[in-house]
Amino acid sequence: MTGLNSIDDLRRALSAAEGPDRDATIGAKDRNAQLTKPPGALGRLEDLAVWYAGWRGTARPVVANPQIIVFAGNHGVAARGVSAFPAEVTEQMVLNFRHGGAAINQLAKTAGARLDVHALDLDRPTRDFTQAAAMDTAEVLAAIRAGWDAVHPETDVLVVGEMGIGNTTSAAAIALALFGGVAADWTGRGTGIDDAALHQKQNVVAEGAARHSGAGDGLAVLAALGGREIAAMAGAIARARVNSVPVVLDGFICCAAAACLAKTVPGALDHCVAGHVSAETAHAPMLAALEMTPLLSLGLRLGEASGGALALGILQSAVACHSGMATFAEAGVSDG
Amino acid sequence: MTGLNSIDDLRRALSAAEGPDRDATIGAKDRNAQLTKPPGALGRLEDLAVWYAGWRGTARPVVANPQIIVFAGNHGVAARGVSAFPAEVTEQMVLNFRHGGAAINQLAKTAGARLDVHALDLDRPTRDFTQAAAMDTAEVLAAIRAGWDAVHPETDVLVVGEMGIGNTTSAAAIALALFGGVAADWTGRGTGIDDAALHQKQNVVAEGAARHSGAGDGLAVLAALGGREIAAMAGAIARARVNSVPVVLDGFICCAAAACLAKTVPGALDHCVAGHVSAETAHAPMLAALEMTPLLSLGLRLGEASGGALALGILQSAVACHSGMATFAEAGVSDG
Repeated sequence: MTGLNSIDDLRRALSAAEGPDRDATIGAKDRNAQLTKPPGALGRLEDLAVWYAGWRGTARPVVANPQIIVFAGNHGVAARGVSAFPAEVTEQMVLNFRHGGAAINQLAKTAGARLDVHALDLDRPTRDFTQAAAMDTAEVLAAIRAGWDAVHPETDVLVVGEMGIGNTTSAAAIALALFGGVAADWTGRGTGIDDAALHQKQNVVAEGAARHSGAGDGLAVLAALGGREIAAMAGAIARARVNSVPVVLDGFICCAAAACLAKTVPGALDHCVAGHVSAETAHAPMLAALEMTPLLSLGLRLGEASGGALALGILQSAVACHSGMATFAEAGVSDG
Repeated sequence: MTGLNSIDDLRRALSAAEGPDRDATIGAKDRNAQLTKPPGALGRLEDLAVWYAGWRGTARPVVANPQIIVFAGNHGVAARGVSAFPAEVTEQMVLNFRHGGAAINQLAKTAGARLDVHALDLDRPTRDFTQAAAMDTAEVLAAIRAGWDAVHPETDVLVVGEMGIGNTTSAAAIALALFGGVAADWTGRGTGIDDAALHQKQNVVAEGAARHSGAGDGLAVLAALGGREIAAMAGAIARARVNSVPVVLDGFICCAAAACLAKTVPGALDHCVAGHVSAETAHAPMLAALEMTPLLSLGLRLGEASGGALALGILQSAVACHSGMATFAEAGVSDG
């Protein structure tokens, strides 16, 4: 698999992708049972390490090349008064990422991760999805491909995030289309809108989901209601699946991108872990719908991969313990 | 304050210790409000950074010298069948720490922290506290001092942890003496004991707390029911308070040590944050009694500073964001 020539190529790639390596998983469980600690005493770190080992195909893996990618896109619905910030902020923040001034720059440095930033046609916002499909087939394919191609060949764990004024509105419409319910279930305050703007945002979300009801599977919903940065995140997560690279998911918008894959091919997110649950009110129900338990809950609601990058540190620690600790036999410690 | 000559010296030092720097706190809040993110979007990271800035006395602090200290001690009550592991494991694990094979070695390396290990008179277990005070005044003072002296002068954030077969029994008895209730409220499975051992452990905890009821303040309870490693953690946490060094607390036993200080001088733990809530059932109610909200909840129950070391990464990330991010003015980003 070297490139995507159609959305159907992506569906086929996801359907054909292999699961975690069985021998590596068994070997990692066996190793875990011998490490110098009471059984289960590292809690969720033990599950994380075994899961990571399975996907990386070795019982004693390392995290050598973590990659964080932030995708940016602009949204037609931003003109509908759904954000506390003007649309120009998307581009301003891209420059901030490039100059090292954003939160994600500090978090990537702390985690020792490579950080890439891809701005996607910022001068061409998606169409207002209450009026038309946000992206046509060529547009959504180009955005998915941008994500697909952005995953470095040596990456061994991936975090994806986004910047895009108006994109919680897009994510909420995707969630409503994929999971049902009413607009209020999936619409939150994003960067911090007031009650009047929240009401307006709910209306936009409801209109969009109603207009595109019956769009099709998750990738069809992505084209109808998504944004370029959301499609790119989906493309990167899918590429990671095909490459057997574990992914740490970020917040609500990242999870909306992931959900489009999950609703297209069952098991498409088996290589993903929820990095955190954000303060955006719809994130917790979305994680529940995806049957994921977040690693962190620290009240973040920034996006730009920030929660995923923080949780990357937990995964790195889990793998470091798993692969670096001595066994009872090696250390001469009595095992109970 | 260069040394402790009595337990009263410690009480005086805690009472006289200064709080966080007011100007630095105000300066940090002001800086936080100007950083390139929506207000509050970094959630708990923002509070952590401002808190850290106050204690370090500068509005734009760094974490340059994190220190993790593991103290080890042996317990007379270990002979009462309260642990799944034999008492020899305390010393075996100290060797494992020294050879780099334990979980905390990997976690310290991942966090870039200095790791010190202090084994305290392992050949002299404390007395069985159901029969006598665990430590006499000279013994508890020596252990507190070992902790007090173990804090490096350049340390700017401290994590303390422990190793000591039988020490959840000691911590449970301390909790029962300090906070009341019944033994079952504070007695958990530690390294993983069965129902019969749990019942026996509850009896030992109840007997100990009953025998030493009315011992006096938190430091008196520490001598009566504690262990050398628990007293040393209390000494190190107290020294950090006097040095204005923030502390990330580890699990149930570490928090029992901290609680002895809190029940001696109100506000003695203002420089502490709860790193995590462990799977040891009594840890959550102890954090509630201390009015602390943990940063992490990952099902750990290992001790040896492991949860605190993981949470150190969150604090480092918070401070990196706070001090490394650009302001709206610096980055030319519209602030809404």
